[in-house]
Amino acid sequence: MYFTRKGILFIISGPSGVGKGTLKRALLSKMSDMRVSVSVTTRLPRDGEIEGKHYFFVNHHEFEEMKKRNEFLECAEVYTNSYGTPRSFVMDNLERGCDVLLEIDIQGALQVKHSMPSGVFIFISPPNMEELASRLLSRGQDSQDSIYLRLAASEDELKQIRCYDYLVINDEIDEALEKIKAIIVAERCRLENIDLR
Amino acid sequence: MYFTRKGILFIISGPSGVGKGTLKRALLSKMSDMRVSVSVTTRLPRDGEIEGKHYFFVNHHEFEEMKKRNEFLECAEVYTNSYGTPRSFVMDNLERGCDVLLEIDIQGALQVKHSMPSGVFIFISPPNMEELASRLLSRGQDSQDSIYLRLAASEDELKQIRCYDYLVINDEIDEALEKIKAIIVAERCRLENIDLR
Repeated sequence: MYFTRKGILFIISGPSGVGKGTLKRALLSKMSDMRVSVSVTTRLPRDGEIEGKHYFFVNHHEFEEMKKRNEFLECAEVYTNSYGTPRSFVMDNLERGCDVLLEIDIQGALQVKHSMPSGVFIFISPPNMEELASRLLSRGQDSQDSIYLRLAASEDELKQIRCYDYLVINDEIDEALEKIKAIIVAERCRLENIDLR
Repeated sequence: MYFTRKGILFIISGPSGVGKGTLKRALLSKMSDMRVSVSVTTRLPRDGEIEGKHYFFVNHHEFEEMKKRNEFLECAEVYTNSYGTPRSFVMDNLERGCDVLLEIDIQGALQVKHSMPSGVFIFISPPNMEELASRLLSRGQDSQDSIYLRLAASEDELKQIRCYDYLVINDEIDEALEKIKAIIVAERCRLENIDLR
């Protein structure tokens, strides 16, 4: 008897401002065997952004064609631009036995849950709402009004937490990071992710 | 919204000689918040064995009465003595939100799976059969005949691996220990083990 393992799709998700981007970057810097999903976008490249590393850049027509051909695990419009997670990149890696990490907002995660129910869905939660408000304010990128709008959305979004497999409360970042790493190690040991020959 | 957590029953199991006893002791020495299940037995206490710590000692009549009253999660006869895992000790701890660790052979684990399907079942596997044989021989406690018998049993037992949630291959003990600790941390983050209020 020997064992081989299937690739696993890990989805890190949670409300805006909860620190999921920071967690993703910290995770990737320590796990060389984890591939990160690269999004397709219609927005123009910024200085230093590399095709295939930061984004796959396409025009609006190409994006719509990809959408029609069902080539996205999820997609969304943000202001005038479109963003999508290409299904082929994720599937190709999983089939080769490579794990893939996807950091995404809650609406996107719910779309991915629909197209890839076998993914491992990790919800990153703030310790509480006051803490989330103060993080968004201290980031200084957003007006107070837009923060109140986001918090209203977050309370709704928190109700969707039941769709996830894991809950990690991001109180101390190092502790949250250790928990996500433990989830990755544990999922790699799960019988349902192992082929027994 | 706040979160409370239910107690989780962790079952470490696998073939004889795979090192599950060593793993259990190493784990308990590092996790002060893990309770270990104490077995009931009809055998007489050995020197230094403490009632309620190493075993709960009962006579054959008492054991049979407990069995009739369905007070065991699992029980077995080994030679002329009986051993059982008392349901009340496990349930009392789980209800108080304490996790419980149970180290047990495969037949016992399958009984516990029946009575406590919500438990987390971790199968400890040898890297391969030759390795298991050499470990049993080097332990020097068993005759060569009894080792061949055990190995035959092990191959049968390995077929039952699919009843478990996790597979940990005990090649390097420190690595296996890290994996079991990761499984414990991850399970504590699983939504199904958390009460959302």
